[in-house]
Amino acid sequence: MSQSKPDTGNEIETQKQELIAALKACGAVRYGDFTLSSGKKSKYYIDIKKASTDPKTLKIIARQAALRVKEMGVGTVAGVELGGVPLATAVSLETGLPLLIVRKSVKEYGTKSRFVGDLRPEDRLVMLEDVTTSGGSVRDAIKVVRETGACVKYVITVVDREEGAKEKLKEADAELVPLVTASDLLK
Amino acid sequence: MSQSKPDTGNEIETQKQELIAALKACGAVRYGDFTLSSGKKSKYYIDIKKASTDPKTLKIIARQAALRVKEMGVGTVAGVELGGVPLATAVSLETGLPLLIVRKSVKEYGTKSRFVGDLRPEDRLVMLEDVTTSGGSVRDAIKVVRETGACVKYVITVVDREEGAKEKLKEADAELVPLVTASDLLK
Repeated sequence: MSQSKPDTGNEIETQKQELIAALKACGAVRYGDFTLSSGKKSKYYIDIKKASTDPKTLKIIARQAALRVKEMGVGTVAGVELGGVPLATAVSLETGLPLLIVRKSVKEYGTKSRFVGDLRPEDRLVMLEDVTTSGGSVRDAIKVVRETGACVKYVITVVDREEGAKEKLKEADAELVPLVTASDLLK
Repeated sequence: MSQSKPDTGNEIETQKQELIAALKACGAVRYGDFTLSSGKKSKYYIDIKKASTDPKTLKIIARQAALRVKEMGVGTVAGVELGGVPLATAVSLETGLPLLIVRKSVKEYGTKSRFVGDLRPEDRLVMLEDVTTSGGSVRDAIKVVRETGACVKYVITVVDREEGAKEKLKEADAELVPLVTASDLLK
């Protein structure tokens, strides 16, 4: 069984139902007939910022993600600017592990670093993402972190749309761990 | 007595000592002879990101800020991208109040909004800042929020360097509430 699965199937299913209910309650997930910016049709619409800016939902996400993080043998929780920062902050507070923020680009002044927080070659990190579709943006962040010598083997995403991120990250030798998937949302 | 002062002078002093000890322990505050990027000399140096990326220190900051927030009659906690986001997230989780992130500039794609999170004209917000010097960047964020009709009367800053921010924000009809000041650090 993959190292990142907590407890039994039943507990995972209960957690999924708890999170889906919270995502619906705060308006982060809506059902209907939607046409996405990509032109694709979808039976559900995700506005994940409604979840990360709602403390009740963010607390549930952090608690569930923390269960996974404890199984991963990592020492740092990372989030990509800007959407991943509230998530990674909440998981850092929940686990007591230090936070690393990966900037989208190098800072123009001051340290000119792509990172906020301490990062050493021996560090082992988990990356937090709010929604994964193709997995492109998180793959870039993983590459930048690995270039420092640090190790990233896991990405926890709140919602995986199941549109190629898992496979893309597997190619990059990283495991995607979704709290919920599109299939879960459409069950 | 200003509405934002919790309990008695003793309790505030105890909180200040607790926070200063934590800021020193995580390396966010160092003492010595420093020349700042502005060319000014200083007996102390602040790297506040060491505090926001250290969950133990961030938890102390959030708890102390939450005591102030509860006295302010506000319904939303706001933070300016990027430094204010971990702080505002932690205070949102601590108080149970929704989070608003104020972007530094309009987002290129998608919603093209300067805000992440819900913002309505009737909202009353407190702004979270990590360090204030002149108060310029937070004044811009206050202006942008007020242009929507919402009300911002308070800014909580972790450390105020006492270099004009209090006066500048007073001119803008906002009260700066520092958890610690330069004078506190140099006592």
